[in-house]
Amino acid sequence: MEIKAFQDYYPDHLSHCYGCGKLNEHGYQIKTIWDGDETLTTFTPKPYHKAIPGFVYGGLLASLIDCHGTGSAAAAMYKQENREMDTEPSFRFLTGSLFVKYLKPTPIDCTLQIRGKIREIKGKKVTVDVEVWAKGVVTVTGEVVTIQVPDKYIKEIIEGGIQ
Amino acid sequence: MEIKAFQDYYPDHLSHCYGCGKLNEHGYQIKTIWDGDETLTTFTPKPYHKAIPGFVYGGLLASLIDCHGTGSAAAAMYKQENREMDTEPSFRFLTGSLFVKYLKPTPIDCTLQIRGKIREIKGKKVTVDVEVWAKGVVTVTGEVVTIQVPDKYIKEIIEGGIQ
Repeated sequence: MEIKAFQDYYPDHLSHCYGCGKLNEHGYQIKTIWDGDETLTTFTPKPYHKAIPGFVYGGLLASLIDCHGTGSAAAAMYKQENREMDTEPSFRFLTGSLFVKYLKPTPIDCTLQIRGKIREIKGKKVTVDVEVWAKGVVTVTGEVVTIQVPDKYIKEIIEGGIQ
Repeated sequence: MEIKAFQDYYPDHLSHCYGCGKLNEHGYQIKTIWDGDETLTTFTPKPYHKAIPGFVYGGLLASLIDCHGTGSAAAAMYKQENREMDTEPSFRFLTGSLFVKYLKPTPIDCTLQIRGKIREIKGKKVTVDVEVWAKGVVTVTGEVVTIQVPDKYIKEIIEGGIQ
């Protein structure tokens, strides 16, 4: 049986994100799955995603952590309710805050593993701890605080703009 | 007289960054200048740099804050010593940590202003507070903790890899 990624369940109006939208042809199109109790994204940087020659640009690492976090938060809420990700009512999360700590340079000539642990689900807030692994070493850690928002609210933002 | 951006002073081996390297043809090539006591980057997102239709992807905002922060840190150190940015010894900064707080969705159909204030210079550590402005409103704030590293060390990383 083919494993569907969290992002494969996102509806079309939420699938345009540069980081994780399957409909954004220019973007990273990350895919996240469960790996035991952890969430896992694997990603191979392009040669031009560099900070200095040979090493990954920090903005990409922050981006991967961000989208990995919102996807993990949604998956965690469905899991807590013992529901499949394509059932209603839907869980949508936006990033409230993102903290990234760069421990050492991340080599670019490898496939990165981004691993998440659900630290806390508290009301509409889900906090995800993230590690970026490269060649068997954690090079970057992150904390993503995500906020659940009703799908109706997101549609209103898209359609009406904000004030 | 033409104003040179901080990034125009970066030597070639530090000009490959996807966020701020003038030699990275795929990247954002941000340019940062002094605006009074603040540092200023202006950036116009591409239509595909979106999170949801109409609004900027959070990873791009984190990336802009990151590179704006390291550039601002270097400029602040030169300014503190009352030196031009092309004088030796050079000041190079890497990001130690990055904190980004998303206050509201950032509209994509405008030119963003990224504004930095040097909060603290303490030894080799420079902390920069950053705001992202869109259509006259602050939509995102950031804190970038940067660490000064000798140019020799960066060249060693590039040439020899890390252990």
